[in-house]
Amino acid sequence: MAKELKELTPRSVDYSQWYQDLVIKADLAEMSAVRGCMVIKPYGYAIWEKIQRELDDMFKATGHVNAYFPLFIPKSFLSREAEHVEGFAKECAVVTHHRLKKDPNGTGLIVDPDAKLEEELIVRPTSETIIWNTYKNWIHSYRDLPILCNQWANVVRWEMRTRMFLRTTEFLWQEGHTAHATKDEAEIEAKKMLEVYASFAENFMAVPVVRGVKTPTERFAGALDTYTIEALMQDGKALQSGTAHFLGQNFAKAFDVTFIDKDNKTDYVWATSWGVSTRLMGALIMTHSDDNGLVLPPKLAPYQVVIVPIYKNDDQLHAIDEKANQLMDGLKKLGISVKYDNSDNKKPGWKFAEYELKGVPVRLAIGSRDLESNTVEVARRDTLTKETLSCDGIEDYIKQLLDDIQANIYKKALDFRQANTREVNSYDEFKVEIEKGGFLMCHWDGTAETEEKIKNETKATIRCIPLNGDMTPGKCMVTGKPSTQRVIIARAY
Amino acid sequence: MAKELKELTPRSVDYSQWYQDLVIKADLAEMSAVRGCMVIKPYGYAIWEKIQRELDDMFKATGHVNAYFPLFIPKSFLSREAEHVEGFAKECAVVTHHRLKKDPNGTGLIVDPDAKLEEELIVRPTSETIIWNTYKNWIHSYRDLPILCNQWANVVRWEMRTRMFLRTTEFLWQEGHTAHATKDEAEIEAKKMLEVYASFAENFMAVPVVRGVKTPTERFAGALDTYTIEALMQDGKALQSGTAHFLGQNFAKAFDVTFIDKDNKTDYVWATSWGVSTRLMGALIMTHSDDNGLVLPPKLAPYQVVIVPIYKNDDQLHAIDEKANQLMDGLKKLGISVKYDNSDNKKPGWKFAEYELKGVPVRLAIGSRDLESNTVEVARRDTLTKETLSCDGIEDYIKQLLDDIQANIYKKALDFRQANTREVNSYDEFKVEIEKGGFLMCHWDGTAETEEKIKNETKATIRCIPLNGDMTPGKCMVTGKPSTQRVIIARAY
Repeated sequence: MAKELKELTPRSVDYSQWYQDLVIKADLAEMSAVRGCMVIKPYGYAIWEKIQRELDDMFKATGHVNAYFPLFIPKSFLSREAEHVEGFAKECAVVTHHRLKKDPNGTGLIVDPDAKLEEELIVRPTSETIIWNTYKNWIHSYRDLPILCNQWANVVRWEMRTRMFLRTTEFLWQEGHTAHATKDEAEIEAKKMLEVYASFAENFMAVPVVRGVKTPTERFAGALDTYTIEALMQDGKALQSGTAHFLGQNFAKAFDVTFIDKDNKTDYVWATSWGVSTRLMGALIMTHSDDNGLVLPPKLAPYQVVIVPIYKNDDQLHAIDEKANQLMDGLKKLGISVKYDNSDNKKPGWKFAEYELKGVPVRLAIGSRDLESNTVEVARRDTLTKETLSCDGIEDYIKQLLDDIQANIYKKALDFRQANTREVNSYDEFKVEIEKGGFLMCHWDGTAETEEKIKNETKATIRCIPLNGDMTPGKCMVTGKPSTQRVIIARAY
Repeated sequence: MAKELKELTPRSVDYSQWYQDLVIKADLAEMSAVRGCMVIKPYGYAIWEKIQRELDDMFKATGHVNAYFPLFIPKSFLSREAEHVEGFAKECAVVTHHRLKKDPNGTGLIVDPDAKLEEELIVRPTSETIIWNTYKNWIHSYRDLPILCNQWANVVRWEMRTRMFLRTTEFLWQEGHTAHATKDEAEIEAKKMLEVYASFAENFMAVPVVRGVKTPTERFAGALDTYTIEALMQDGKALQSGTAHFLGQNFAKAFDVTFIDKDNKTDYVWATSWGVSTRLMGALIMTHSDDNGLVLPPKLAPYQVVIVPIYKNDDQLHAIDEKANQLMDGLKKLGISVKYDNSDNKKPGWKFAEYELKGVPVRLAIGSRDLESNTVEVARRDTLTKETLSCDGIEDYIKQLLDDIQANIYKKALDFRQANTREVNSYDEFKVEIEKGGFLMCHWDGTAETEEKIKNETKATIRCIPLNGDMTPGKCMVTGKPSTQRVIIARAY
């Protein structure tokens, strides 16, 4: 019964349903009573906290500081930057009143018409406008630059179709907003933060990513260049996992933010912004997990090891408790997080399924016979293999095993991406190949028209123009016009 | 010039202006373009991050986990708990639409009337309603209890008069929401979390607090009991610094959250909620700071030590750099955070004033003569005293000094509170004494009428009925009716 409840729809049957089952059954999140907004449950949030902590350390190591800017943006601010308003005005939560009152004609509450705001407030979809309005007061001279601020915050975009973690009305993210004296410095900053994201994705999430730049059509609203990391999910669809924008002087001009440079000349300030969100959770889940449940990279797992006792009576349990406590002490000394589940109301088989579902990287099982032989059963979540090993030196073995699992799931994801990255040279071939999923490496003539045609006809988008990719020129697969390098085209989340 | 810019209005001249000057000039925060909302600047946010980290560790050590619930609350949810809606409906931000569009009659943006929400959404002023609506699905049996969740979040209350950190429209906080099988367990939880807050205030913030319970009038809207920690500011006003609420079964009843207990009987779930906010920053600032600026407790200072070089030329600076780097290494090994400010565009005097303003607990100055004599000048922020000491063993000395400063500012605050806590036995005496500020310990007859009379006539409120206070009975200072114990009355923020 309990086991059945935990069963997931297999990926091969319905990938989308598998994802939703997994998010719910592994206790990561659930949809709330508020349209498009999710509740992030404790186990899901524990992973997000690990993501936050690691990223925050990386931001600080690259000279950034945290700050906090208002949730609300005056309506008039949105209009200041022409492209920005186009990008966000159509899907935003608008605060119009500041009070409710009792319905004089009923029992409920109504909006109090006397409490209408003079100017409506938008719940931030992103914070460039309110932040650049603030920076105006902070920046006078080149000596005030650079400003390297980040904030961890919630944002709201009124999405029509939502999916947990991947696209929700409210989501959690960090947004870096930096101000610079020169164009070069801002461009270097945007690229540096892209590399921070790429390095985090690969080294902590074990998710291989392509570093690239977006086409003008796919840029952030208000950016001159949007750098992106793109990951490939198991169903062959791409997931944009983080972006860093070179904003030029657009927001400085919109909010009149100037500075006196070293030569005593006045210029507009150069800007970047960059963000990753709870969407990363979606990338993490979809890259590694299988039909048995989550597979978590050891570096982000809320607990890396779980110990399950196998016993017939209280005497046996007490003896195993003692052994397990020794083991836990040894593992904790090596910095390994471990949970001992000796709860009495669930059977070992239920626990095995539960921790498999929750993606705990290593499971240890100790039975009475193990006590006699000084052994422990070690199970890997990634390969689903088991072995019985001596307890002597087991702590060091597990430490190494966690590193191996981290490396193995990365390699597996990288192999998958390589196997699903294909060069395509004609549009006819493309139309066949795109149905199979994956990253298609194609020549493109660089025009928005061709890009739109591809999108309309195949639902695929140019994910990015890879940085440091193959720079061999060629001919556009659609128009035959010259192309400077292949771009990555895929269907995407 | 620079020095003048940094000067604060003295507390004796205008305490309120001093506070505002300090918040702005020490770079803690500033008001934003959005009414009542502040920008928390990096230096202020760094203190908040330390507060968060310590509290979060304490929550986890007491068995709590973090989660995240939606920013928005459907309007109808607010009405479910009768007192709750009274408390919050009159000051809330209401989202009524989800789209803007171009004004057909102008150049700006207007709310799109076609994008009106079916049900308005309230930006959470607190999350009991959305959380208990969620808990309904999580709780079926006593085995699902207790639930011990916390969230770090932003909340919005449409306050008419705002002051940075103390009362702002949007503020940051944590809110714990727990669910229990028994009344006892919930009451113990509320008291436990009050003690966590009290211990944090005293041991980390160095702010002595009185633990107490609120009168029915001053309870949280929807609570059966509100426990509070109350601190005394330097101007003699009280600051409520944290509250923990025993909510009884009110929210379980409002959202129909029942469970099957061990005896197979159905009952409503028992609840608590508890929170502290960025208001703690106000308590921190007002308890310790002086006319020269902030005084920070070493345990929460973004950097505990600053080193300032005193030099006439580059050669001297290079020699001092070397010495300072040695010192920094030694301090960091002891876990002390340290900043070396060898910036070339500011004079030592400016730096001294700056770090005094920013409340850095210990300042070290190194000049050329110090290099010759192997000495360093050590200045304490709390006492503003200086001494020249040998560099031998200076790291251990500073570690001890930081502990001494932490203890000293706590003692100073405690002495101040004790000197300003007075027993008052008649209402006439009270009316005189309340003008002097402080905690007045008075007998009260326990009625809301007397409480209101005191408030209306003197602007003072019953801050709390102290827990573990003097339990000697007496007679109400206003009515002469019996009183079981003295309560604390004060004017408050």
